[in-house]
Amino acid sequence: MKKINVTIWNEYRHELAEGQIGEYIRKIYPHGIHTFLAEKLQSEDFEIKTATLDEPEQGLSDELLNNTDVLIWWGHCAHDEVKDELVDKIQKRILAGMGLIVLHSGHMSKIFRRMMGTACRLRWREAGEKERIWTVAQTHPIAQGIPETFVIPNHEMYGEPFDIPNDGKIIFMSWFEGGNVIRSGVTFERDRGKIFYFSPGHETFPVYHDAVIQQILTNAIRWAAPACYVPPRITKQPESPEIIRTENPLKAINTTVLHK
Amino acid sequence: MKKINVTIWNEYRHELAEGQIGEYIRKIYPHGIHTFLAEKLQSEDFEIKTATLDEPEQGLSDELLNNTDVLIWWGHCAHDEVKDELVDKIQKRILAGMGLIVLHSGHMSKIFRRMMGTACRLRWREAGEKERIWTVAQTHPIAQGIPETFVIPNHEMYGEPFDIPNDGKIIFMSWFEGGNVIRSGVTFERDRGKIFYFSPGHETFPVYHDAVIQQILTNAIRWAAPACYVPPRITKQPESPEIIRTENPLKAINTTVLHK
Amino acid sequence: MKKINVTIWNEYRHELAEGQIGEYIRKIYPHGIHTFLAEKLQSEDFEIKTATLDEPEQGLSDELLNNTDVLIWWGHCAHDEVKDELVDKIQKRILAGMGLIVLHSGHMSKIFRRMMGTACRLRWREAGEKERIWTVAQTHPIAQGIPETFVIPNHEMYGEPFDIPNDGKIIFMSWFEGGNVIRSGVTFERDRGKIFYFSPGHETFPVYHDAVIQQILTNAIRWAAPACYVPPRITKQPESPEIIRTENPLKAINTTVLHK
Amino acid sequence: MKKINVTIWNEYRHELAEGQIGEYIRKIYPHGIHTFLAEKLQSEDFEIKTATLDEPEQGLSDELLNNTDVLIWWGHCAHDEVKDELVDKIQKRILAGMGLIVLHSGHMSKIFRRMMGTACRLRWREAGEKERIWTVAQTHPIAQGIPETFVIPNHEMYGEPFDIPNDGKIIFMSWFEGGNVIRSGVTFERDRGKIFYFSPGHETFPVYHDAVIQQILTNAIRWAAPACYVPPRITKQPESPEIIRTENPLKAINTTVLHK
Repeated sequence: MKKINVTIWNEYRHELAEGQIGEYIRKIYPHGIHTFLAEKLQSEDFEIKTATLDEPEQGLSDELLNNTDVLIWWGHCAHDEVKDELVDKIQKRILAGMGLIVLHSGHMSKIFRRMMGTACRLRWREAGEKERIWTVAQTHPIAQGIPETFVIPNHEMYGEPFDIPNDGKIIFMSWFEGGNVIRSGVTFERDRGKIFYFSPGHETFPVYHDAVIQQILTNAIRWAAPACYVPPRITKQPESPEIIRTENPLKAINTTVLHK
Repeated sequence: MKKINVTIWNEYRHELAEGQIGEYIRKIYPHGIHTFLAEKLQSEDFEIKTATLDEPEQGLSDELLNNTDVLIWWGHCAHDEVKDELVDKIQKRILAGMGLIVLHSGHMSKIFRRMMGTACRLRWREAGEKERIWTVAQTHPIAQGIPETFVIPNHEMYGEPFDIPNDGKIIFMSWFEGGNVIRSGVTFERDRGKIFYFSPGHETFPVYHDAVIQQILTNAIRWAAPACYVPPRITKQPESPEIIRTENPLKAINTTVLHK
Repeated sequence: MKKINVTIWNEYRHELAEGQIGEYIRKIYPHGIHTFLAEKLQSEDFEIKTATLDEPEQGLSDELLNNTDVLIWWGHCAHDEVKDELVDKIQKRILAGMGLIVLHSGHMSKIFRRMMGTACRLRWREAGEKERIWTVAQTHPIAQGIPETFVIPNHEMYGEPFDIPNDGKIIFMSWFEGGNVIRSGVTFERDRGKIFYFSPGHETFPVYHDAVIQQILTNAIRWAAPACYVPPRITKQPESPEIIRTENPLKAINTTVLHK
Repeated sequence: MKKINVTIWNEYRHELAEGQIGEYIRKIYPHGIHTFLAEKLQSEDFEIKTATLDEPEQGLSDELLNNTDVLIWWGHCAHDEVKDELVDKIQKRILAGMGLIVLHSGHMSKIFRRMMGTACRLRWREAGEKERIWTVAQTHPIAQGIPETFVIPNHEMYGEPFDIPNDGKIIFMSWFEGGNVIRSGVTFERDRGKIFYFSPGHETFPVYHDAVIQQILTNAIRWAAPACYVPPRITKQPESPEIIRTENPLKAINTTVLHK
């Protein structure tokens, strides 16, 4: 069986923060969100690697990137530090077929905004309130085994309006105690690549500890993995499939009014 | 009546080329495509300006951009010369409500690719063959007054697969003598901005001389103009619309298994 | 100015009910929801008529239907009594360009289900809870003048999953006190007709008394009105636009393997 | 391995026609299109049955329908004879998860029109002209192993405008010698069911003899088969997930102006 090569990229700054907040976060994710997820998402059909912002080449060498089938992205306070050249490379790789799973605050990451073409803004409030998630596309591969509704007891609020393109297929929608709603699980296709944005997962709420959340991410990896067959791309017409007009295009100059 | 401020941006290189080809193109567009269009698209509800790549600030000062309601873009051989900072500004302006009309080879422009998130590649062949256009969305504002089908006698072929996002609404589809098809008129919405890509319009075929093509562009300007009312954007929740959870989020740490 | 011919159709059964509940509803809508809306939605560009289920021809004669630009539909307990022949006629008229605005419990009406192709089921709970509405597509014509968020203090809950087709463009989304969310304002296009589903508006909650709700319906009427220009439909190719193959199709029988 | 239960339904009238035309068609499909396809689409993961209009219960007993995972539909001259009650049952089954593959002239079948909500009209010309098909969604499961472009040497023309809903995802687009284009392979999702419309396949052109066409249909069966996990549907809220408002809804009558 060919395994799916998964790379979990994490900004990895919050978990290393000094003081009380860093200590607090490390109680939830002692070795970073990436390490935690790498362990929890283990599956016999996955080959999981991790990468972080402060590693050489910001964690993503050409070799690693070119061998990644699905890239998971967690970033928050250091989006701007990610180099544009790296974003270019990741985009190219996605368009060629790599899957991208963008988590939580990654909605503002350079790579997600690049893929969407929008600013990807939403409303937010950090209050630790109850979030109820509804499975809207119940038969979608990402929703396999997921109940119709479930609860995250305390979470940061993310709300509409969320400026993503209209072709975002809604898999999950969320309700927040404080009065907000959001499309919290949305898929996109861009050329040959599949993208899944999933909003649950703040650094100070233990959301990724939850088994349902882990199941959703596992499903998303399988869904986002590249299709098995990719036809060879032809960038120029081979020798034009049919009749080629070889006549002098200059003739066209005479046709000032085309519709006579 | 408040007029629609239209800015027609042209790379303006082909029309200034030396030698036979430049001379040939100047027979079609003596003062550039931008000047030609500015004249032909005149209407009492439009205030039309032009801008070109080699002008100061690449033609688009902040003042001009911030006063543009609809930007028309024609570029081909110098896409790479457009500065990223300018692309950033245009994108921001589109997301805030400015309309964008991308013509022909502009499918590879930085601004169109930025808005789409894809490479926007298509198949092409420069052969001067017949193109037949079909109006697919007959009641769309851009199709008002346009016949169900019409012909451009000689044109460069642009063909599928055309890697644009799935939410592109098809207004026109084209048939080429040589065996190709393409979604040749497609609309997108990105945040508050409307985008229309229209493939007819090469520099050596007198496509913009055609009255039907001019009508389509006129319709597109009116369609892409910003909506009259734009509610004030709130980037942070005012004081949270409802119950705010003020309790200590640290409590959440105890909930390791969320669904009990 | 050509006025928009609006017909407000109401099942008109709840408002005539005997006993305490009927009395109660008549306090809100003394002469029926249709009469109330006809008065409140008055505008100099609208010509409003009403129609009800128990009138001759179920309220919609051919003459009235053929002169209706936008049909508003309110039904609930008598969906099944609407004749299939009438549904056929309404569908035909919508596909030819008439707008359809479906209110509240009309999600289960024959005409809405016919247009959607799905059962249009949703979750519900009649509890009189708070509904908060969010304007997701803030620059859409239906959202003109509507605040980013507003509240209906007491309403029946309608919730996801709501099985409508994926091309439903979300204009509004709702949050309910009891933990549910729904796409509460959604538009569709079907051939030449525009459709708007809007969930607020139960018979025992005075939702249509609200000025914001009335503004949304007014906007929706203008949005759903037919486009001014409709090109003549050709059901058969006129004389085939190009080369017609007149050769005997029997020849094709020889081509058992087509791709050689 | 659980096999996919495929039922191929054929109107089966053309193949039984008297005279020269019937004789001609029987040279291509001696025992009907259904029998031919049942043989050619054989695969170890399929359990294929056939059904025809003139069999008892129009070929589709409740038992057969309820055990069908993917229904393939070929009809042309007898669409009107299919009973509405049967169409109701098929629709219900599709919404519950059965896949539907609609072939060629089936675009006008009652079941396809029911699922689309539109009249599904297109332009056509029976001339035996060349059709070139382009694979637009190259990584879609239905396109696995299909070349970027291929030719049907002689076929009936089907052309745009084709009035299907906007959420039709384009898998294939076709070019016709006579100047027409069409979205010839399009997918839809309706509640839990997947639908694929594929236009190639007239009764007098041996299109289904082609190996590429057969591969597309094989792919489509696998794509349209129901998802493995379907969560139990709850038609009423269990005991309301959160706070239920039990207070008297009559209170609402006092709130005549809601937004104060």
